[in-house]
Amino acid sequence: MASNKYCIIMAGGVGSRFWPVSRNAHPKQFLDILGSGRSFLQATVDRFSKIVPTENILIVSSKQYEKLIIEQVPQIPKENILLESLKRNTAPCIAYATYKLYKKDKDAAVVVTPADHLILNEDVFLETTETVLNHACNSDCLFTLGIKPTRPETQYGYIQANKATAEIVGGHASYQVKTFTEKPDLEMAKVLYSSGEFLWNSGIFVWNLRTIKAELEAYLPDIAASFADIAEYYYTEKEQQKVDEIYEGCASVSIDYGVMEKTLRCRVFEASFGWSDLGTWESLYALGKKDSSGNLVNAGKKMLSDVKNSIVVSSAPDKLMVIKGLENFIVINTPDVLLVCPRDEKQIKAITADLAIGNLGEFL
Amino acid sequence: MASNKYCIIMAGGVGSRFWPVSRNAHPKQFLDILGSGRSFLQATVDRFSKIVPTENILIVSSKQYEKLIIEQVPQIPKENILLESLKRNTAPCIAYATYKLYKKDKDAAVVVTPADHLILNEDVFLETTETVLNHACNSDCLFTLGIKPTRPETQYGYIQANKATAEIVGGHASYQVKTFTEKPDLEMAKVLYSSGEFLWNSGIFVWNLRTIKAELEAYLPDIAASFADIAEYYYTEKEQQKVDEIYEGCASVSIDYGVMEKTLRCRVFEASFGWSDLGTWESLYALGKKDSSGNLVNAGKKMLSDVKNSIVVSSAPDKLMVIKGLENFIVINTPDVLLVCPRDEKQIKAITADLAIGNLGEFL
Repeated sequence: MASNKYCIIMAGGVGSRFWPVSRNAHPKQFLDILGSGRSFLQATVDRFSKIVPTENILIVSSKQYEKLIIEQVPQIPKENILLESLKRNTAPCIAYATYKLYKKDKDAAVVVTPADHLILNEDVFLETTETVLNHACNSDCLFTLGIKPTRPETQYGYIQANKATAEIVGGHASYQVKTFTEKPDLEMAKVLYSSGEFLWNSGIFVWNLRTIKAELEAYLPDIAASFADIAEYYYTEKEQQKVDEIYEGCASVSIDYGVMEKTLRCRVFEASFGWSDLGTWESLYALGKKDSSGNLVNAGKKMLSDVKNSIVVSSAPDKLMVIKGLENFIVINTPDVLLVCPRDEKQIKAITADLAIGNLGEFL
Repeated sequence: MASNKYCIIMAGGVGSRFWPVSRNAHPKQFLDILGSGRSFLQATVDRFSKIVPTENILIVSSKQYEKLIIEQVPQIPKENILLESLKRNTAPCIAYATYKLYKKDKDAAVVVTPADHLILNEDVFLETTETVLNHACNSDCLFTLGIKPTRPETQYGYIQANKATAEIVGGHASYQVKTFTEKPDLEMAKVLYSSGEFLWNSGIFVWNLRTIKAELEAYLPDIAASFADIAEYYYTEKEQQKVDEIYEGCASVSIDYGVMEKTLRCRVFEASFGWSDLGTWESLYALGKKDSSGNLVNAGKKMLSDVKNSIVVSSAPDKLMVIKGLENFIVINTPDVLLVCPRDEKQIKAITADLAIGNLGEFL
């Protein structure tokens, strides 16, 4: 392990489509939705610890999750936990980590990753990521990992690869990026899927610090300048206060929109390591292990009969779940919410929207 | 209020068809299933306190419920709480209360009632019961209250009245009883209902002590002798021990089968005070107040949409119940059980049977 390799884990999301298990006060990345014994954040740290030293893992998250992070991954040094006072999307988050790390190690190469994704084939993931990370040390490109689609998924963004620009690195093909596409409808997803040119946007980036710094300065000069200006305070007692001041006046913008879609240096590596952003119950259902009736069950004591193709999750292992006569349903029991609704992508979004306007926002 | 009027409340049942709200350790009579603020037992005591002095109310129940009874109805004198060590059905229960009370007041007239029934029109109930109780003081008949049926119910037993033997007492008609009929199937229930001769068996009895004592001696001589033999111990420290010894060797028999179906002195008063034994969720649904979608809801925070003709009950007022897309369902949340199943008489019985054989008996 070379010490100039780093990992930046973005752990500030709320995972609202995983309601009611994922909550504002305890979002998805801190949960063990799969019942594996490790939360998504813990699994992410575990995974990257195999290719970068633990002391080179940074976590950027919201201030309100500081305690959860320290609790769940106590091996991460305190100075590596970067706290945002306000939600400002991914560009400020990446800029903060970039400039702070740049003060310490100007030759750093980093992989930037969400905290709450599922990787099915870890060996392939690690081999791919390590290859790209090594390659990025001496490249002035911004790399993103594009997942080879296995179905016409409507819940992911797509990246169009320019197949004419293929370059093979350690057995992995990278391409210049033609376009970024938002979540398509089903008809469009089928077109993208069958074209062979489109990859799922995993939101995992790999680059060296000099390159991302240059591109931030080029495309998001205000944000870049703000974080450059406080360089003297990183790793000091005043860091948090100075960063808070920047967030106060900072634009909310994603790294995709702010940099990746504009830069000429963007390339995508095609990858196939069994990936899901596990953004919805539906995606969990698609990937999770089902019983012989097609039910995905993560509960302690239970008695299911005449239940088919449903999701049953309970956070109370000693509570008996007796479920009968449901098909294509979601039943979720948390300490303060019981949800019973049809298994359908749109339900959760509609329900959380209703809660927000119905004086029940405390349950979000 | 004359002091020779008494009420014997039988409160030893387990109400298993009301699972999972009604439990072995906390059965239906101690619950406030209707959300009225009073348990069935409390409501029963409240009701009878209007026609007999509180100190004339006796409660017969299982030893394991002693604490619950003292907690819920502290106004009942301790010596009026009669505790059974074993479940032996209603005949021993009534015999015990009869012989104990007979030692104190040989002229007593009593109304014997289950603890867990619903009375919709209390004024009519009290007026009817008081009339029958007054009448019973000087009658050598055993009276039962028969409810004029309002539908072909399959969940109640029926009593056939001999219409030729009508006698009017204070505006209420009583008849000799021709037959007792067990719960009929629907076809039979329709015949009984339309005949005009059959009344629902409420399980509420009225008689004077001399009469029931004579009939117990005639038809259940062993049980009668047992409780007569320990007369010297009633109201002494040794009462419980002596009663326990009797229960140990006592036959389990109902007062209906043991006495009422055999005696020649049985008469039924026709009554119409809006009665239900509330034996099942279905009967609660039939009588309870429904919202505009036909849902019976007794829960704190909730958000129901596209839910029809269903029962939603939660014992946790601060837990949010989000229910969507169910029709004719039961959703019951208790501290240690969640039940979601079709609204159908037979479901609960099938489920509790499955629990018993499935190593989940702790949840009964």
